[in-house]
Amino acid sequence: MTPSTTRRTSAPRILDRCRELVRPALVESVRRLHPWHAETAAFSLGWSGVGGDPVPGSQGKGVRQALAVLGAEAAGGSGADAVPGAVAVELIHTFSLIHDDIMDGDETRRRRPALWKAYGTGPAVLAGDALFALAVSTLAESPGPGGPAAVRQLAGTLGELVHGQAQDLLFESRPWTGPDAVLPQEYRAMATHKTGSLLGCAAAVGAVLAGAPPSTTEALDRAGRHLGVAFQAVDDLLGIWGDPQVTGKPVHSDLRRLKKTYPVLAALAADHPAARSLQALLTSADPLDGPAARRAAELIDAAGGRRATAAEAQEHLTAAHDCLDRVELAEEARGDLLTLIPYLVDRTG
Amino acid sequence: MTPSTTRRTSAPRILDRCRELVRPALVESVRRLHPWHAETAAFSLGWSGVGGDPVPGSQGKGVRQALAVLGAEAAGGSGADAVPGAVAVELIHTFSLIHDDIMDGDETRRRRPALWKAYGTGPAVLAGDALFALAVSTLAESPGPGGPAAVRQLAGTLGELVHGQAQDLLFESRPWTGPDAVLPQEYRAMATHKTGSLLGCAAAVGAVLAGAPPSTTEALDRAGRHLGVAFQAVDDLLGIWGDPQVTGKPVHSDLRRLKKTYPVLAALAADHPAARSLQALLTSADPLDGPAARRAAELIDAAGGRRATAAEAQEHLTAAHDCLDRVELAEEARGDLLTLIPYLVDRTG
Repeated sequence: MTPSTTRRTSAPRILDRCRELVRPALVESVRRLHPWHAETAAFSLGWSGVGGDPVPGSQGKGVRQALAVLGAEAAGGSGADAVPGAVAVELIHTFSLIHDDIMDGDETRRRRPALWKAYGTGPAVLAGDALFALAVSTLAESPGPGGPAAVRQLAGTLGELVHGQAQDLLFESRPWTGPDAVLPQEYRAMATHKTGSLLGCAAAVGAVLAGAPPSTTEALDRAGRHLGVAFQAVDDLLGIWGDPQVTGKPVHSDLRRLKKTYPVLAALAADHPAARSLQALLTSADPLDGPAARRAAELIDAAGGRRATAAEAQEHLTAAHDCLDRVELAEEARGDLLTLIPYLVDRTG
Repeated sequence: MTPSTTRRTSAPRILDRCRELVRPALVESVRRLHPWHAETAAFSLGWSGVGGDPVPGSQGKGVRQALAVLGAEAAGGSGADAVPGAVAVELIHTFSLIHDDIMDGDETRRRRPALWKAYGTGPAVLAGDALFALAVSTLAESPGPGGPAAVRQLAGTLGELVHGQAQDLLFESRPWTGPDAVLPQEYRAMATHKTGSLLGCAAAVGAVLAGAPPSTTEALDRAGRHLGVAFQAVDDLLGIWGDPQVTGKPVHSDLRRLKKTYPVLAALAADHPAARSLQALLTSADPLDGPAARRAAELIDAAGGRRATAAEAQEHLTAAHDCLDRVELAEEARGDLLTLIPYLVDRTG
């Protein structure tokens, strides 16, 4: 979606560079934990398997640490300024995956058992708490005048994250239809809290540590939030129409679990005959298994839910670009951010 | 254990005064949460029952907030200086009770269902996270030059808390005897982390916010830590010999659950025939039910475990006093601390 020029570094290279910059501090930070928590952290970060054996290559992309590094560079600082913030946001992301998997009952994560399946629920609760505490410590002890402002940024984000997770959990008990039904705009607010707030914090925290003015850090924060909503919309599309070979999840997985995702809510809110059929299917007592899930996916598409979700993703991607265009940033880092953002959202390939 | 003079305020009055000072900020802080988390927080703080109905009078003593207020006053500040710190330590205490009850499988807390029993495990994990995040926010946003140092103090404490909980959970899978048995000094280290660190932070954080020098805040921190170890030792005595009417727990509850507490570990480490009999009883395949638990309690007492634990409590109580004696403090607040500390430990009456 961005014009690619020969001068631009590719997104995977940008991610690699940022990961290499942050990795030593992340490893050092994890080493401060109780050995049991260092093991569960290494497992959750994809560095090792159950028991601590090395399993290289199963780690995440490192989206949040990259945003932190690029945010610092975009604000005229060095990537090194961002490192404590980059470590903190990666740890908070890992904490939230561990606890969310417990709450959602998700048994797998990145094609491996979820931490609670591998180590038990109690130990997984504590492993998450350990990463939460470590993230706060890492940032609170970061040198430089931007430290306290960065801690405030992270603290506000933590509150938003749990707020978004509460909204998401409560959606489960709301009806599909009627006055208590979840509206698409409520879903967007949830996604902003649950996914956008940490991506916004990631983009802003490096700049905060580099001493950037509020106009810069706020623009980066807003760009990261829009990226988060776009990311969530694409995640919802993949949860229904994604290739199981690519997503690692069963086909129609979100539909089978009756998850209230954006495509379904947008379809139900549409004035279209397929919306009524979809409503009847979702509220019937029968389980939404293979053929019924396929039929639901067709009805969501027919009612415009798929198109609306793709438009939602595109709109927030454009908004993220606009946030970065409207503020003065170091050109090379801005270029890297503009390369990275659509790459992170486009996960179909 | 302290000479009581007519000039001294009674401990319950001190607790009441501190609770009244902190309460408005604590209420205001909880009000910032998602309504669902405001409800679970009010339940966990003893302000209301399931569903939010008011249940006055079931709240805790407010030990940690009182220590924070008195710490600030002892350092020459005002109790008001301590308020953000007092709120933060009460929230962290509540968070840790919620998550510990999940990990330990404890179904009741203060004669009411534990939060996870009342609301479910997933919601209780999230409710704890919400309080954790709120505590960090409250302190990170506190005005005044001591704020960043107070955040660092709290962050270090959070790491110690989870470290201590990990030690405690791992004790469960260690044997009663042999080279891998838990030693009394390992138990003391666990209690210092798990119970002492937050009481130390509570005593120090108000002084930190009031701008006290490190010599003062460190003395208060150490006093709080000793109080924590003394508190834990008395808790262990009550877990075996406490009156169920007073403790709210079944008689011999810790023994029935085969908990590795100080009296048992001290008894097993003793060179006494009763230690060998106790060892045989604990390692037998039979459940430690009524008569066997009573026999175990007798053997622990005969091997000196009860006396050693009472001596441990007394030693740390004296050490807490000494910490406060060796540093310059405002006299009235020092007097209040010296009144409060033995009162908190003496919970037999």
